[in-house]
Amino acid sequence: MSAAAANPDFASLLRSHAAAVEARMAALLDGELASTPAKRLAEAMRYGLLGPGKRLRPFLVIESAALFGVPREAALDTAAALECIHAYSLIHDDLPAMDNDDLRRGRPTVHRAYDEATAILAGDGLLTFAFEVLARPVSHPDPAVRAELVLELARASGATGMAGGQMLDLEAERLPLEPEAIAVMQDMKTGALIRFACVAGAILGRALAGERAALEAYGGALGEAYQIADDLLDATGDSAVMGKAAAKDAGAGKATLVSRLGVSGARAVLENKVNQAVAALTPFGARAATLADAARYMTSRTS
Amino acid sequence: MSAAAANPDFASLLRSHAAAVEARMAALLDGELASTPAKRLAEAMRYGLLGPGKRLRPFLVIESAALFGVPREAALDTAAALECIHAYSLIHDDLPAMDNDDLRRGRPTVHRAYDEATAILAGDGLLTFAFEVLARPVSHPDPAVRAELVLELARASGATGMAGGQMLDLEAERLPLEPEAIAVMQDMKTGALIRFACVAGAILGRALAGERAALEAYGGALGEAYQIADDLLDATGDSAVMGKAAAKDAGAGKATLVSRLGVSGARAVLENKVNQAVAALTPFGARAATLADAARYMTSRTS
Repeated sequence: MSAAAANPDFASLLRSHAAAVEARMAALLDGELASTPAKRLAEAMRYGLLGPGKRLRPFLVIESAALFGVPREAALDTAAALECIHAYSLIHDDLPAMDNDDLRRGRPTVHRAYDEATAILAGDGLLTFAFEVLARPVSHPDPAVRAELVLELARASGATGMAGGQMLDLEAERLPLEPEAIAVMQDMKTGALIRFACVAGAILGRALAGERAALEAYGGALGEAYQIADDLLDATGDSAVMGKAAAKDAGAGKATLVSRLGVSGARAVLENKVNQAVAALTPFGARAATLADAARYMTSRTS
Repeated sequence: MSAAAANPDFASLLRSHAAAVEARMAALLDGELASTPAKRLAEAMRYGLLGPGKRLRPFLVIESAALFGVPREAALDTAAALECIHAYSLIHDDLPAMDNDDLRRGRPTVHRAYDEATAILAGDGLLTFAFEVLARPVSHPDPAVRAELVLELARASGATGMAGGQMLDLEAERLPLEPEAIAVMQDMKTGALIRFACVAGAILGRALAGERAALEAYGGALGEAYQIADDLLDATGDSAVMGKAAAKDAGAGKATLVSRLGVSGARAVLENKVNQAVAALTPFGARAATLADAARYMTSRTS
């Protein structure tokens, strides 16, 4: 079942937000890179950032901020900065020394389309650019909001977050992890950025502490659901639809919930996480219907 | 002639500031990484950041800020953040896909001491940590100052600054650059961070626009002097003193001022840049004596 069949409104809103974020990212990069003599690096950054993608994290920033009346335009730069971090992580994770992937979203990975040195620098450039975008006065008029966004994004992305999770994931190929350690690794590698997306909306919207905590709980459960859906896709998905190699985890001997609980067991945990995510939205009532749809979308992901 | 012989007071102040910055960097990293399960990544980040180093960039932050009465303690986090960026750049530049260096400051490079994937992630982690350190309220009480430091550091480090310069330097191995393009490349690769160090002092000290411009001019000339001194060391230096391979540029066919003008010609340009740097400090009078010493130190560098 495709996402569109599951919920046409949600799928259409996801596409609309994605188009707005992509236009903003292209404008930001063009503005930044127009004058740089490092043309090859600029091209590789564009290639890595502006290729096909669902833009789920930007969607979560925009919709979380919308809970507090923040218009989409005012959330776009934060959404774009987060997507820069996500894109950098894919470029570096795909490198030969890491996951060694040739294909990403149906296209050659950055180090295949360019070369390894350019891919390393393109990742570095996008990582750095994310913080530049957040720190610019145009991203939010209040410097305290900008500084807090930088702080939370750095925490979510660095050694105690995404980069640390990637390290644990690489080490797990040599020494398989226990179930609890898998959960920690996945929370760092994938969960931290998804949680940031939701918290960023709260920061932009100057949410109360309780509202921010609710969004953080939502993001945490959503991140877990996202990861289980990813593992299920790897185990059961179609490489052609996903645009990348399937059954890669099993081939690498990686322990996932699917390899431990089987497909139907993992699906049951996925349903449970989706319900947790939806429950976390209770304080927002009907205003959070779109975020609830985003959680339910996890059960119907095909790519 | 060693730096100590050239000016014992300057050398002793450089060492004193370096010790303070190293203590602060160690405390910051320990606080950040104490709880992460990614122990190997944490170790590699410590190894890359806390090895031997002159800490010239932190020195410039501290002394530029001191012009405006900012105490050393209040400049340490900004100095530490900048050194995180410098350390990340060395880790990534040393990678096999880039400059492929086995030795750095007399020790195995991070990818030799650990492995390539860990080195990529350690660089990513330090790059990200730099922005986390700057964005924390403890780095400066005014969020506008923190946001501006993030913005300027990102600009200096990214595709239009240091990372872009490294890209141009790599490309120059295949297609040698004209003298003007070499100057642009070196200004991006080395000059941008050194200029940031001086501008950061102005931001921390809430300098007037003219004072900030003077420091930026000083940093620009100092960065050029630093690069020429580096090229001279590569051409004439002692590998054992430098702790890394000498004559590497000539071996790689890299065009530098030394290969174009010869050693004595390059030394003349170096003297000229040092004089420019010192002249830029005129508005500060005797208060800037230490920064003037830092410029003169470039002519006596042995490592």
